[in-house]
Amino acid sequence: MSAALKIVIVGGVAAGPKAAARARRCDPQAEITILERGDYISYSACGLPYLISGEIPTVKHILASPAGVMRDAEYFRSVKNINFLTGKEVLALHRDRKVVEVRDLATGAQETCPYDKLVLATGASPVRPRVPGIDVKDVFVIRQPRDGLAIMAALKDLKPKRAAVVGAGAIGLEMAEALVEWGVEVTVVEALDQVFPGLLDFEMGALLRRNLESKGVKVRLGERVTSFGSDADENLSRVYTDKGEFPAELAVVAVGVRPNVDLARQAGLKIGATGAIQVDRELRTSDPDIYAGGDCAENYHRLLKRPVVVSSGQLANIQGRVIGTNLTGGHMEYQGMVGTVVAKVFDYTAGATGLSEDAARREGFDVVSALVPGLDHAHYLPDALFVGLKMVADKASGRLLGVQVVGPGDGAKRLDVAAAALTLGATVADLTQFNLGYAPPYSVAIDLLVNAAQVMQNKLTGLAQAVSPLEVAELTEKGEDFMLLDVRTPAEFQQVRLKHPKAFAMPLGRLRDKAQILPKDKLYIPFCQYSLRGYEAEKILEGLGFKRVKFMDGGVTHWPFELEYGTKEKSKT
Amino acid sequence: MSAALKIVIVGGVAAGPKAAARARRCDPQAEITILERGDYISYSACGLPYLISGEIPTVKHILASPAGVMRDAEYFRSVKNINFLTGKEVLALHRDRKVVEVRDLATGAQETCPYDKLVLATGASPVRPRVPGIDVKDVFVIRQPRDGLAIMAALKDLKPKRAAVVGAGAIGLEMAEALVEWGVEVTVVEALDQVFPGLLDFEMGALLRRNLESKGVKVRLGERVTSFGSDADENLSRVYTDKGEFPAELAVVAVGVRPNVDLARQAGLKIGATGAIQVDRELRTSDPDIYAGGDCAENYHRLLKRPVVVSSGQLANIQGRVIGTNLTGGHMEYQGMVGTVVAKVFDYTAGATGLSEDAARREGFDVVSALVPGLDHAHYLPDALFVGLKMVADKASGRLLGVQVVGPGDGAKRLDVAAAALTLGATVADLTQFNLGYAPPYSVAIDLLVNAAQVMQNKLTGLAQAVSPLEVAELTEKGEDFMLLDVRTPAEFQQVRLKHPKAFAMPLGRLRDKAQILPKDKLYIPFCQYSLRGYEAEKILEGLGFKRVKFMDGGVTHWPFELEYGTKEKSKT
Repeated sequence: MSAALKIVIVGGVAAGPKAAARARRCDPQAEITILERGDYISYSACGLPYLISGEIPTVKHILASPAGVMRDAEYFRSVKNINFLTGKEVLALHRDRKVVEVRDLATGAQETCPYDKLVLATGASPVRPRVPGIDVKDVFVIRQPRDGLAIMAALKDLKPKRAAVVGAGAIGLEMAEALVEWGVEVTVVEALDQVFPGLLDFEMGALLRRNLESKGVKVRLGERVTSFGSDADENLSRVYTDKGEFPAELAVVAVGVRPNVDLARQAGLKIGATGAIQVDRELRTSDPDIYAGGDCAENYHRLLKRPVVVSSGQLANIQGRVIGTNLTGGHMEYQGMVGTVVAKVFDYTAGATGLSEDAARREGFDVVSALVPGLDHAHYLPDALFVGLKMVADKASGRLLGVQVVGPGDGAKRLDVAAAALTLGATVADLTQFNLGYAPPYSVAIDLLVNAAQVMQNKLTGLAQAVSPLEVAELTEKGEDFMLLDVRTPAEFQQVRLKHPKAFAMPLGRLRDKAQILPKDKLYIPFCQYSLRGYEAEKILEGLGFKRVKFMDGGVTHWPFELEYGTKEKSKT
Repeated sequence: MSAALKIVIVGGVAAGPKAAARARRCDPQAEITILERGDYISYSACGLPYLISGEIPTVKHILASPAGVMRDAEYFRSVKNINFLTGKEVLALHRDRKVVEVRDLATGAQETCPYDKLVLATGASPVRPRVPGIDVKDVFVIRQPRDGLAIMAALKDLKPKRAAVVGAGAIGLEMAEALVEWGVEVTVVEALDQVFPGLLDFEMGALLRRNLESKGVKVRLGERVTSFGSDADENLSRVYTDKGEFPAELAVVAVGVRPNVDLARQAGLKIGATGAIQVDRELRTSDPDIYAGGDCAENYHRLLKRPVVVSSGQLANIQGRVIGTNLTGGHMEYQGMVGTVVAKVFDYTAGATGLSEDAARREGFDVVSALVPGLDHAHYLPDALFVGLKMVADKASGRLLGVQVVGPGDGAKRLDVAAAALTLGATVADLTQFNLGYAPPYSVAIDLLVNAAQVMQNKLTGLAQAVSPLEVAELTEKGEDFMLLDVRTPAEFQQVRLKHPKAFAMPLGRLRDKAQILPKDKLYIPFCQYSLRGYEAEKILEGLGFKRVKFMDGGVTHWPFELEYGTKEKSKT
């Protein structure tokens, strides 16, 4: 019998332990060692906002397995026969001798650890912008359990009245919610002009921002933090931006992460243009005996067909499984990701998969987009909720490029179906006929995702003509002559309506009759609450001989500008 | 300008109105007439159980659009310029003259109605088994609004204490729940040996049955109703079966539907072997000017690649859109369905997509199946719930064939993702790397569907060896020598465990040490609550040189036989 394979894994959070566990299942005899610098292993970093909000009672909950077993070194030894060492910093990697140099952080003792196969799962570190005051003690990042515990300690000790969250990505907004749970007044500062930048397009971000503001969160967009100011006791007191300042006694900086590649770089492994470790489809680095996975390594984007850098516990786990297989002589290729992100932000679900319209255009795609909100299940059941939905497709091929969801309804389901469709290269035409599960508590007969695909198909084939809310804003700016026809019922109009000088009430049921008095050469833009009746109105007017009619995508639901609520004194109906 | 196209549509519930609406959008000038025999049009038949349960306040709710507009004849006229006539029975179809003969049910007046293009959307009728007493007035079917209103009236007038539901399909079980809401003691009688026959495999049905029984519903399986007995007042009093009898003052028969094809048959259109109207991929019947869609027409099964007959409001709508397009000179092919069904049964979601293991075997597939339950989201959040999940795949190609879900957790999402995957011809390997939306409130890092695919892949590649609970029962019956190793924690064991003489507690953490005393040649079947630790145990024992180890699929969660609850006096641990 040949000598047991020596596998050394650097990093013990997600990709590392997963690669180890998989390697063990594939090779019962291998000697497997995991070296982790921190004290906590195999934890769910994504659970930290819920720990801070109090929804999770103790940090142990995010360390234990679903069966309640602590995933500690003893667990890895007894159950998996894996040598899991914590408090071990890897100082250097000597590829010529196939050893890593390790320092014990408690004792300072150094030793070398030989390997046949090595896995780099060194993760990523939160970016701390180099601005004055970034080291004030009440300015936190959030990545590891100790960060979460430190923020909780500060909340208890400082009892801050006001907090700043820097960065309006998923983690920033989850943290905003967690801080609101503590009764803290939260201001979110984001350098770009919307929340969830990069993932959501502007209109979708606007829907999410409106909900944040309704929960009392102040949102400052297009504003860059320039410094953190502290008081005489060196406690944080104010946050300064390029546009102003505001008081805050605690701050959480969540502006992204950077892959930890120092070890790989020092050892001469190839680093990709993205700044992460370059790997092939088997997740092998430029050294065939060294694999890399998780946040430290480049990821492969199925739609862009090139490496990207992302931070994802899910993808780290998928990659860990691939690595564990290949490490032990198997063969498995990593197929790549489609960029699916979802977050719960108060009562809203917000997420995206594939490419946003912005991103797709930047990548050179000729795209068609559609804003098609809908109810998550049968409207006649009392708890049906709306989901704002945007779909992006490639004009020439009709291929689905992306889906975004924002709203109180079950958008997560539609996002996952869209992610599956994107992964498998589905066209919009495919989606129009998806046979999804239909029962009144789960969907409507034509699910909102399928409905969105049908609307998109109508656009792609030229049956439907539409303008986006942003295009309406452009037309307004240019002083174009047009009418926005609000074809909803009078009751809906009374409740909420666009604040726009060219918007008039014109209920759908009366449109055929009323259209007689409208001049035929004008541009008409009908819309409703969602999209369907707006489209219906377009077809009615076209049928009556109107030549310039385009419905407005997404209706009142997706109008990203000002709305007017309550009874209107004098309705134009 | 040529004369307007005359479109006549027979049937006004789902496929009919959808075809009409689509035709209108594609052809603003067409003359479109819908002829409906009943009084209610364009209603949601699937909403009826919720009307009866009281969740929906009035029948109007299932007739109105999401915006609260009644979809009545006036609405179709004013908004869609569609002539929607109710109370009109089509007596005959004369293809030679291209007319239909219509009788007004109120006045008895007859007229002929000419068409250029005709659509048959005549739906299906509930099967009423020909048993004595089937016409007793308290024995109902449930299909149309009037059926629902009649049942509600009977519940109010009769105040029945006990009710029988005949048929344990989705509608039967939804009705059982609705009747329990009225405080009625419900007995479900099903001729086959499980609930949801045909859709769920036996073990999955057992999980659902257990939940029904926990809600007080009596379930009588493998029992056929032979007659309904009434008292002196001609009220229903007893239900007789081939195995016994029980008292009931109200009965709902939900044993399926039969396509309404009389009109098509009389006119000499081809009827398929399924008993439904034969159509091509454009949904054209054997007469090129006549289309058919919805429950009266054959459907196309993407996996079986042949026509089948189903009843589905969703598919009827998808088909209506295809028909409306083709009617008006467009070209669209119906791509077919994958058999997705979902139902809420009390707090459980139960559903299936693709083929069950039974169905796949009957169709000649060489299949591999896996029972892989999991939590619907992060276990450390308080409301995480389990989903029982079964996956079926084709052994040779590794292609996904079906997924079934039963449980209190969000199985509907996984079902829809699986439906998308099936539609697009995904392999199990594809699913193992699906990049689904991950955040703790929505899933675990490796979603339970992806996890199931990974387990399936381990089976397909031979890495994992497993037996199903049914195979364990077979081994037991044959008197084979084996040990069932319950590798859960002692606390889990104390709470609930298999009632099986060969089951012993053997916590995973102690397995490596304890295994030394076990004889190496015996057959060992480790299992846990779900599957993962059972698999882990298999790999541990194999690593220690044991040759005959197979974990039991689905663990305690999917054990379809007797369980034992509470503290065990003398544990074998």
